[in-house]
Amino acid sequence: MNVAVDAMGGDHAPEMVVQGAVAAVSELGIDITLVGHEKKIAKALDTRPAHGHISFHHCEDVVEMDESPLKALRGKKDASIKVAFDLVKGGHADAVISAGNSGATLAAGVLALGRIEGVERPAIATIIPTERGRVVLIDVGANVDCRPAQLFQFGVMAQAFACSCLGITNPKVGLLNIGEEESKGNEQARLTHELFDKSELNFVGNVEGRDILMDVVDIVVCDGFVGNIVLKLIEGNVEVMGRLIERELKSSFFGRVALALGRRPIDRFKRKLDYEEQGGGPLLGINGVGVICHGCSSAKAIKNAISMAAQYVNSMVLEKMSLQLKASKIG
Amino acid sequence: MNVAVDAMGGDHAPEMVVQGAVAAVSELGIDITLVGHEKKIAKALDTRPAHGHISFHHCEDVVEMDESPLKALRGKKDASIKVAFDLVKGGHADAVISAGNSGATLAAGVLALGRIEGVERPAIATIIPTERGRVVLIDVGANVDCRPAQLFQFGVMAQAFACSCLGITNPKVGLLNIGEEESKGNEQARLTHELFDKSELNFVGNVEGRDILMDVVDIVVCDGFVGNIVLKLIEGNVEVMGRLIERELKSSFFGRVALALGRRPIDRFKRKLDYEEQGGGPLLGINGVGVICHGCSSAKAIKNAISMAAQYVNSMVLEKMSLQLKASKIG
Repeated sequence: MNVAVDAMGGDHAPEMVVQGAVAAVSELGIDITLVGHEKKIAKALDTRPAHGHISFHHCEDVVEMDESPLKALRGKKDASIKVAFDLVKGGHADAVISAGNSGATLAAGVLALGRIEGVERPAIATIIPTERGRVVLIDVGANVDCRPAQLFQFGVMAQAFACSCLGITNPKVGLLNIGEEESKGNEQARLTHELFDKSELNFVGNVEGRDILMDVVDIVVCDGFVGNIVLKLIEGNVEVMGRLIERELKSSFFGRVALALGRRPIDRFKRKLDYEEQGGGPLLGINGVGVICHGCSSAKAIKNAISMAAQYVNSMVLEKMSLQLKASKIG
Repeated sequence: MNVAVDAMGGDHAPEMVVQGAVAAVSELGIDITLVGHEKKIAKALDTRPAHGHISFHHCEDVVEMDESPLKALRGKKDASIKVAFDLVKGGHADAVISAGNSGATLAAGVLALGRIEGVERPAIATIIPTERGRVVLIDVGANVDCRPAQLFQFGVMAQAFACSCLGITNPKVGLLNIGEEESKGNEQARLTHELFDKSELNFVGNVEGRDILMDVVDIVVCDGFVGNIVLKLIEGNVEVMGRLIERELKSSFFGRVALALGRRPIDRFKRKLDYEEQGGGPLLGINGVGVICHGCSSAKAIKNAISMAAQYVNSMVLEKMSLQLKASKIG
């Protein structure tokens, strides 16, 4: 197993990315190809123990976070994310992970590896910690406008992923909407509900915003506009609430004592809601394995994303996904 | 000032609603007309001190939470929410509050009082507690599909409301989107961005999900599909996080001590995020004053909603809104 890691992508690249890759090698025992500017990577690797399992692939360019994905990929033929997917295409690597520009990662994946047969639009899924477990949210930003058949495919792909990579038996699928009744929501939501209803998925119907974190379903389907807002809102909410509770506790003597005594359970609480524990968001629908990490990923998040990518490759989920998409073909 | 209160609307009606109305009378010194089934209301009022400021208006019907608004209003001519708005129309009351079916409340308001001249679609705004203050979110469910000109009007109406009723000088308006750059998002978002950009509103551009609770803007504009999901997600998130932190603290001895010592700051923290403190969501765009409360509103939430309705009436914001809509007319 060799995972191509985009060493130049992310707010803390290449340092954090390299650190995560080193951790993945020692903890997971897989090979890593670090793709990016060799001198910069070597410098970041300098203080780390050298590993025979890490190799380099030099390239000059990088797609910056705020660049237009397609324009950047056309202009920068030697961009790290493009080169990383080309390594998979050429059989030199099995998967790609990147904490860089997510649009560019998706586009580079599609350009190099193509889509799974029958997939209209690849999507980005993400795994969100919930009250008692986790939920797969799809799409979180790849497709801002979606037709019902595309939303339905997101559900099919996420189901295959959740079964094979997360070990969830017969995952429950919900459609994000503004009411439980099937008549609720906009035209898009109503038509998508019909498609899911007729399918063989374990579709439980519409779910509302409050259900997302309450373990009502294993998979929440929505378009990338809504999904991206939901994902960022949850991240922001967790951050704000963490700051608010600490501020309140610090404002009184007994509060400060409580904070000191409760430090461990409070840290456990924070860890439960930590997206870093989940690793990254798989690209579903491309004919290969790619995992996108948060731009400000820590080394731990990078390591967990590499672990997810490896599991994704081992699970042979691509074949299953392709079969299920064919079986549930929507005209 | 007389506020018509839909005594039959909400999960805990009429008890909680009546209790909130009684509190409003004693604390705010305004008159209340309780609209609903007189016997049931009288029973709920039974144990409360009688007030000369509370009167009844009997009606037989009530629109249930899960009914289709328009169908219910057509069938139930004597529904409490309809009768309440008719009291305003007839000059017997100045405003309506209801914790019942929000779609029916909006529809009854439009049917009885009409729209402010020039308003294409009335919307439901809501006030959400943030890290350091509060933010007005509009629309939270009235309009699932919106044209850019309608979204722009939501911003104009919310701006007038925030100035007059919340005392915010020159409130900052943001458009909810999936990136800060104006090129981001779907077609609807890009065209709406242009309209706001050309206007005289204090438009700061796109805001993302994570900005909503971080006091980046005073007003967040989105369509009712997204807004409803956002509102319910925040409510759910606050609930889940409250439970999670208590569960973690209770799981260890020091945690339990911390919980006991930190009870007061933790309660202050909860109160900060409590929607009940904010009262309710104003209906913006109807030619009159209506405030919608959460279905499971407590007496305190009802009282605060009555207070908001009274302030709305006193602020003469309807005239200002009408002028501003004319001034910023979009073809």
